[in-house]
Amino acid sequence: MKNNDSSIGIVKPNSVKFENSLLLECGKQLKGFEMVYETYGELNTDKSNAVLVCHALSGNHHAAGYYEDSGEKPGWWNSLIGPNKAINTNKYFIVSPNNLGGCHGTTGPKSINPKTGRIYGPHFPVLTVRDWTNSQALLADYLGITTWHAVIGGSLGGMQALDWSLAYPDRVKKAGVIAAAPKLSAQNIAFNEVARQAITSDPDFQEGNYMEHGRVPKRGLRLARMIGHITYLSDESMKSKFGRELKEDKLSFGFNAEFQVESYLRHQGDVFSETFDANTYLLMTKVLDYFDPADKFDDNLVEAFNPILAQILVLSFSTDWRFSPSRSREITNALIGAKKKVSHIEIESSLGHDSFLFPEERYVEVLKAFLGS
Amino acid sequence: MKNNDSSIGIVKPNSVKFENSLLLECGKQLKGFEMVYETYGELNTDKSNAVLVCHALSGNHHAAGYYEDSGEKPGWWNSLIGPNKAINTNKYFIVSPNNLGGCHGTTGPKSINPKTGRIYGPHFPVLTVRDWTNSQALLADYLGITTWHAVIGGSLGGMQALDWSLAYPDRVKKAGVIAAAPKLSAQNIAFNEVARQAITSDPDFQEGNYMEHGRVPKRGLRLARMIGHITYLSDESMKSKFGRELKEDKLSFGFNAEFQVESYLRHQGDVFSETFDANTYLLMTKVLDYFDPADKFDDNLVEAFNPILAQILVLSFSTDWRFSPSRSREITNALIGAKKKVSHIEIESSLGHDSFLFPEERYVEVLKAFLGS
Repeated sequence: MKNNDSSIGIVKPNSVKFENSLLLECGKQLKGFEMVYETYGELNTDKSNAVLVCHALSGNHHAAGYYEDSGEKPGWWNSLIGPNKAINTNKYFIVSPNNLGGCHGTTGPKSINPKTGRIYGPHFPVLTVRDWTNSQALLADYLGITTWHAVIGGSLGGMQALDWSLAYPDRVKKAGVIAAAPKLSAQNIAFNEVARQAITSDPDFQEGNYMEHGRVPKRGLRLARMIGHITYLSDESMKSKFGRELKEDKLSFGFNAEFQVESYLRHQGDVFSETFDANTYLLMTKVLDYFDPADKFDDNLVEAFNPILAQILVLSFSTDWRFSPSRSREITNALIGAKKKVSHIEIESSLGHDSFLFPEERYVEVLKAFLGS
Repeated sequence: MKNNDSSIGIVKPNSVKFENSLLLECGKQLKGFEMVYETYGELNTDKSNAVLVCHALSGNHHAAGYYEDSGEKPGWWNSLIGPNKAINTNKYFIVSPNNLGGCHGTTGPKSINPKTGRIYGPHFPVLTVRDWTNSQALLADYLGITTWHAVIGGSLGGMQALDWSLAYPDRVKKAGVIAAAPKLSAQNIAFNEVARQAITSDPDFQEGNYMEHGRVPKRGLRLARMIGHITYLSDESMKSKFGRELKEDKLSFGFNAEFQVESYLRHQGDVFSETFDANTYLLMTKVLDYFDPADKFDDNLVEAFNPILAQILVLSFSTDWRFSPSRSREITNALIGAKKKVSHIEIESSLGHDSFLFPEERYVEVLKAFLGS
């Protein structure tokens, strides 16, 4: 039991199966799908206290608490979701789904394609954030939630929150758009592309049919994670975490992991390659690349934001260079231009893009105030 | 003939073989080695006009002019080296060697180890910038050059120029330290490490013995180059070069190269993987990681710079995020602290780290003035 950190404690995932077809943005129909999710706290009688939490690229539905059989590692936002925490489980009913296309239980590339009876693998349709929003709307319907008190997320999850306020304006009261950008830059896409190339050029990838061949493109996944990880940390946080510290006292003049940052990255890559699905990773990076709400409005973000009714909080972190504060401000400025209810807070933090995962004091206060206002 | 761009025209590489052993920083002896180099312009009678040009990570001795049999692509600094150019071949005798450990003719991992009669491959010793400086000093001796009018280079080449002023203070009148840092940050090392992992985890790498097995770790080299390339460009230059432009008019919902930046990176990776040696790439990144003149002085860079006699120009570029202006200023500030002759110019340029390769007007003027002063 891990209740001493005021965690929500032991949690269990739920699952729901939707039988109807979902029309995707690519034009394809998904013939029914399963969605895995967790909930924390209690839904009140008028169902007005529901908060949707959206995960990022490699996240999943396990956002808070612990699983009974693996008491060690809590959910990815455990430090922010719990009794009296930033997202207070004593006040709110928090819903945290695994995104469509994921690899942790929700229908995705690892699932069986009902049309063929075989694993989807590389044939799983390429998705968009809007597809996720639509699938999550079905989950809201299923749970009887007409309107979210808030939709909130960091990074890709922040884009998801923004998209909710665009796609279902009257179903979102507040949207928390954290460490996000209105669309990826060419550099962001470039990093994603190198990660994809690492995976697809791994001989074990087998054009995406690795499961059928009993193989796992671990080398590619490992590299993809290492590349991603560099962009999650700031140069400053790397400096304070590792500096140029050597594992041994002196230079080895060889190619084993020598600086501490090297063994850290290798370890991150190893763990990830054991647990994440390669086709899902490809899919998630593509969802990121495709996100661009202004695309259908001639790049006019102000016009794109017209439908929004929600009160929006845009949060950025000073040392985030993946989606820097200036990228977040593009969102804020367009919201101001569109005369929307928006506030923007930039949090001082040395932790880079990953800052959104950590309970920095001001960050926690701002989230609490926003949700409670 | 390509003389219309005031190029130096057709050039030919030279080669020299040193028979004596070279003691390396790792403690090993290199039993003789060959060094390939090019020269442009004429050495004057008192041998006082020699300029040593130092190449970066993936560069080589072909810095200016054209080869007769491949008239298309000039040397990597052709826009800066030539008649009346920034590094004026009418005034200076320019020497441009391929670094030890390289893969373009100078002894390196592709060479035969005289001790074993077999290709060095992964057994080529891990080098340092100081080893290069020492080997280039032998080249200077051979050419009869007691004192360089200037030693100059960008990126790793800039570190090389700095090291010359430290190792042989009385043999360097001026050092041009361009787009460099006093040592790599943890983030810099991290990028190098991912590139190395891409190469060493390629099944064709064969623990470095790929040549003996008739294989080439092209996938790994390709990824390494793509990763490197992202760090050479600024977010701004990527934006102006590619933006989020699609190759076709609309999203493909597939995994072929879709955004222009993707096909650009793939192309860069492909070309590089055809021409560069994997063991050399590993070696060069390690040389970069190891560079740290303050290491033996308890991280006191001011003290480390004490021996310097040369006049030093430190040049940085506004959008360089690989070795940002603030990293270059660390060099300058320590030189000021050590009461050395130093000037620092920050050039406004949108081209990121690669700026040092392009003849931006102010950059050219500053270089001319520095060399001619």
